[in-house]
Amino acid sequence: MATTRRIAPAEPRRRLPDVPEGRRRAVIEAVTPEIDGGRFPIKRTVGETVAVEADVFADGHDQLSATVRYRPETDPEWSEAAMEPIGNDRWRGEFAVTEVGRYRYTLRAWIDRFGSWRRDTTVKIEDGQDVTVELLAGADMVDKAAGRAVGLDRRLLRSFCLDLRTGGPVGEKAALSVELAELMVRYPDRRFATSYGKELEVVVDRERARFSSWYEVFPRSTSPDPTRPGTLRDVIGWLPYVAGMGFDVLYLPPIHPIGRTHRKGRNNSTTAGPGDPGSPWAIGAAEGGHTAIHPELGTFEDFDALVAAAGDHGLEVALDIAFQCSPDHPWVTEHPEWFRRRPDGSVQYAENPPKKYQDIYPLDFETDAWRELWAELRAVIEFWVGRGIRVFRVDNPHTKSLRFWAWAIRELKADHPDLIFLSEAFTRPRLMYGLAKLGFTQPYTYFAWRTSKPELTDYFTELTRSEVREYFRPNLWPNTPDILTAQLQAGYRATFMARLVLAATLGASYGIYGPTFELMEHEPIAPGKEEYLNSEKYEIRHWNLGDPRSLAPFVAAVNRIRRENAALHTDRGLVFHPVDNDQLIAYSKATADLSNVLLVVVNLDPARRQSGWVHLWLDDLGAPRDAPFEVGDLLTGARYLWAGSSNYVELDPGVLPVHVLRMGGG
Amino acid sequence: MATTRRIAPAEPRRRLPDVPEGRRRAVIEAVTPEIDGGRFPIKRTVGETVAVEADVFADGHDQLSATVRYRPETDPEWSEAAMEPIGNDRWRGEFAVTEVGRYRYTLRAWIDRFGSWRRDTTVKIEDGQDVTVELLAGADMVDKAAGRAVGLDRRLLRSFCLDLRTGGPVGEKAALSVELAELMVRYPDRRFATSYGKELEVVVDRERARFSSWYEVFPRSTSPDPTRPGTLRDVIGWLPYVAGMGFDVLYLPPIHPIGRTHRKGRNNSTTAGPGDPGSPWAIGAAEGGHTAIHPELGTFEDFDALVAAAGDHGLEVALDIAFQCSPDHPWVTEHPEWFRRRPDGSVQYAENPPKKYQDIYPLDFETDAWRELWAELRAVIEFWVGRGIRVFRVDNPHTKSLRFWAWAIRELKADHPDLIFLSEAFTRPRLMYGLAKLGFTQPYTYFAWRTSKPELTDYFTELTRSEVREYFRPNLWPNTPDILTAQLQAGYRATFMARLVLAATLGASYGIYGPTFELMEHEPIAPGKEEYLNSEKYEIRHWNLGDPRSLAPFVAAVNRIRRENAALHTDRGLVFHPVDNDQLIAYSKATADLSNVLLVVVNLDPARRQSGWVHLWLDDLGAPRDAPFEVGDLLTGARYLWAGSSNYVELDPGVLPVHVLRMGGG
Repeated sequence: MATTRRIAPAEPRRRLPDVPEGRRRAVIEAVTPEIDGGRFPIKRTVGETVAVEADVFADGHDQLSATVRYRPETDPEWSEAAMEPIGNDRWRGEFAVTEVGRYRYTLRAWIDRFGSWRRDTTVKIEDGQDVTVELLAGADMVDKAAGRAVGLDRRLLRSFCLDLRTGGPVGEKAALSVELAELMVRYPDRRFATSYGKELEVVVDRERARFSSWYEVFPRSTSPDPTRPGTLRDVIGWLPYVAGMGFDVLYLPPIHPIGRTHRKGRNNSTTAGPGDPGSPWAIGAAEGGHTAIHPELGTFEDFDALVAAAGDHGLEVALDIAFQCSPDHPWVTEHPEWFRRRPDGSVQYAENPPKKYQDIYPLDFETDAWRELWAELRAVIEFWVGRGIRVFRVDNPHTKSLRFWAWAIRELKADHPDLIFLSEAFTRPRLMYGLAKLGFTQPYTYFAWRTSKPELTDYFTELTRSEVREYFRPNLWPNTPDILTAQLQAGYRATFMARLVLAATLGASYGIYGPTFELMEHEPIAPGKEEYLNSEKYEIRHWNLGDPRSLAPFVAAVNRIRRENAALHTDRGLVFHPVDNDQLIAYSKATADLSNVLLVVVNLDPARRQSGWVHLWLDDLGAPRDAPFEVGDLLTGARYLWAGSSNYVELDPGVLPVHVLRMGGG
Repeated sequence: MATTRRIAPAEPRRRLPDVPEGRRRAVIEAVTPEIDGGRFPIKRTVGETVAVEADVFADGHDQLSATVRYRPETDPEWSEAAMEPIGNDRWRGEFAVTEVGRYRYTLRAWIDRFGSWRRDTTVKIEDGQDVTVELLAGADMVDKAAGRAVGLDRRLLRSFCLDLRTGGPVGEKAALSVELAELMVRYPDRRFATSYGKELEVVVDRERARFSSWYEVFPRSTSPDPTRPGTLRDVIGWLPYVAGMGFDVLYLPPIHPIGRTHRKGRNNSTTAGPGDPGSPWAIGAAEGGHTAIHPELGTFEDFDALVAAAGDHGLEVALDIAFQCSPDHPWVTEHPEWFRRRPDGSVQYAENPPKKYQDIYPLDFETDAWRELWAELRAVIEFWVGRGIRVFRVDNPHTKSLRFWAWAIRELKADHPDLIFLSEAFTRPRLMYGLAKLGFTQPYTYFAWRTSKPELTDYFTELTRSEVREYFRPNLWPNTPDILTAQLQAGYRATFMARLVLAATLGASYGIYGPTFELMEHEPIAPGKEEYLNSEKYEIRHWNLGDPRSLAPFVAAVNRIRRENAALHTDRGLVFHPVDNDQLIAYSKATADLSNVLLVVVNLDPARRQSGWVHLWLDDLGAPRDAPFEVGDLLTGARYLWAGSSNYVELDPGVLPVHVLRMGGG
């Protein structure tokens, strides 16, 4: 076909490009961190830094400059941090976040024409070439930079310009001048700078979002008098105990009125006896729903008193958000449109076929009245925020609309950026990560079921080394009211100690469900089940906190170590070290500057003494290769002189199944 | 602060969400292929498929459905391909591209409420529960689906609906019916379907973009008469030779008038003798520039005759696009604004300090007249397209504006989707990949310098197993006029044979610069240099194609094998197999259905016989584990009976340094 075409005059075929600016030669690609192409924010806490990397390149051989631009969402002015090349066209820059709320960051890159000129001219001067014309070209650039500069800098640039125009040795000296190069970096020609097309986001939380120690207790089990249920006032009496163990979040299961219809009895029996209190998660009764307090627990005055007293003990009260209803919940009659009906007109109760949960009505997030439902649920949280609560543990968020959570958390944190939401989703990995991405501050994890060395190593490598670490801040619980693992059921004291130390040192945030944990409750409801026998979910318990076998003093020691060692305040800086014994796991946690480095060794075998050689990555510990170094056990006060990368450890579970060693001595 | 707040009536604080539709419960994430968050298209050729994967999940336990939606860019109607779960919430679907041009694809997912109902109801029926109410709920869904259906399907759905309403064994049978389940899949309830927010792109090229065999020749060296330079008409005389070797692209270095100012002499000397023809890349003289033909080569009529004759031989002519100018190029006077001036008023020639190239003026892509420059450069390519050229080899694209290429290639391919652009950039990896992403059809590679087994294995694993394979279609050249590698300089015939087979079988596209390659030219201009002695870049050569030592018959045999074996028509399906001898490399290429499987073994040592055991990944070869299998050498006709994964090979470079074996015999 083409051979029949004639050579037309070229003019009419020339279409000018419909491109706003074709002279932007720098390219910015493969930016990290960037979650799902920028659809989700990364997370930081106040005072942390964001290290941004990108591929930055351009055609040809010119030098480049690049910056990270960042600002709090509420501040229209961008700040800039210079980026530096780290090899293979990869660049890196960082900035610190100093306020709670949202930040934005993006990048900018441009041809550093003066830098290219200086590099090339230096080569020519060293080669002995005549650079008269080059010096004049440089002078033009310096002159223009002077026009962008102010004050003393302008005067200095004008002076250098004169030197370059003078030429000869004076001009050459100016061309090679480091002072001039530094001045020129401050007044770059960015007319043709490339902006990265996206603004990426950081959610900046307060420190507790990153470093927190949780203690869960059922208020109704806190009575000092075995003849009556515990109250919120009784919880106040527990505060010295909980604070004394070193916790900073006191999490209460739902405190709302409990339904009577289909109420569960002790040990999850389907019929409740007359004295059975029911599950706190069967929320709602004639006395009220999600914004009411169970009359037996006390009044709003009691609640306020508890929140205030907890604050005096350095404890924050965390409430449970469980968006589901007992059949007696006021919403069931006030908003029947929020519940799905079956063809026979009955409400669709919760099911996991063939099992049925007639005592729980799920909310229907596909209701036509979803807008009103969302608004009401958001108002529930807002209500408790209004009573001074800033930390929420969200029950089974993965069985409610993900879009709802994304919206509600975003809206609530816009007004209250200090809110913390813990996601209680034990489900498939994508959904766990999805919840963290859409806005939950912290998630529960699979930690309870990761018990062997390879399981722990793989899981925490994934959580701390992959992109996941940018948005998923694990909160490690060795037990919960629903989770008494087979490992704990064996009842070894050493297992409880080891799991506590693993949770408290592998994770910057962790929690225990007490007092079952420190009192080492370990009887399951039936063999092969993870439910506790005589679970507090269905009955009121009374606890002997003074039990001499209690692990409370050990818990207190571990939490003291956590507070005193900055390496444990972050999930970054975790490194596993090989041990030639599968029952011993060793890992270090270190601050970025290696000023605080801990090495933890845990005997995973609760029954037998285990020993072996730990092969240390000395550089990650900041330990010398050619000199002995001291390590001190923070639990026992013992000190050891170690040398080189291989060192012997022996742990007797009958004595203490863990070493928590600090480099440089205890 | 919170303790001073009173319980306000909740109503005034309730803000209805500003969200268009909150009932879209499915989430779509982590879509592959998706290059840089969708900023760049992937590449395919006509007839290939695009396998799309994504994380698809939702809250709760409902079943999901998902589809890939796709369409040619010019077609407003979407087609759909069902996706299937492949584990861990990952889904997969694929579609074929059947037309050159651009395609778009995106995804859609929704809750499969009928599927969830069927799964749950099945469990209840098997558990012996009364499902009367469930059957009525199912009947409602089937009734609504009937409303969406047409014809016979509607009638069938109405009938199933009736059965479900009837209940009892009739209703239960309908609930379990596979026919009903299949019907319901065809009429899903997608009111609340989630659309993936982006439309991703595929550039679909013709087959030659994926599978091509290039031969480069300097037209001025094709004269049968040693006393005069070759012409385009002489190239016609070479067509039987080139086509006889099995090539399908005939690539000519620039055919334009060559500048006289600062013309280079033989062996790159800075002063040309009176008879020196100059470098074809010093484009432009009084006779014209990029749209003119060097008078010594011939006329446009000759050019058209060559293009037509090449087509008759199954060869496409590829032209060289080198956007740079000799000082005598018409643009230098007609468009002085396209060239950067030095302060002394002279044009800034090309430099690589301290080296200077006064015979080449680069175009200034930062000129204020960049729009006119872009338009003119695009018009140059359009001009040659108008003369029947569809394949262009672009000289050093990485030293011109990347934005220009992105625009020009996009514009040109919009009008001529069959165009192929080969990027001649030997530069840093990010820039090589960047050029491929922005639109170049094929790139040159580092192949020439990847000579050892680990180098070849690592490089081709990166190119064929990472995301790079979606947009970077390597074109492998063992030599070019600029690249005579140290390995080839040693002059071993076995090296030339081995490099040819590696290029022709590791890559679906490859090329040689002839006749230097098949005549095994190997003298460098100086020790340690990669330039040829007496390079055709600076002088006219005359070749003895009838040289009995020529590799032409071997080249012909290799290209015949390429044509006859579909496994070699794609870069997919490459698998390396271990050999217990570092001098032997083994790899297989296979079609997706394993109907065509080749195993190539190359002795990388040109001087010594090498032998060893190849450890085959039998599954990748489609070979049986428990029975012998025949392999046939496609070069020698020899047949071998092999068994199991370990088989002995021995290659004597003095005879033949390669095996090209086909599974199932020759």
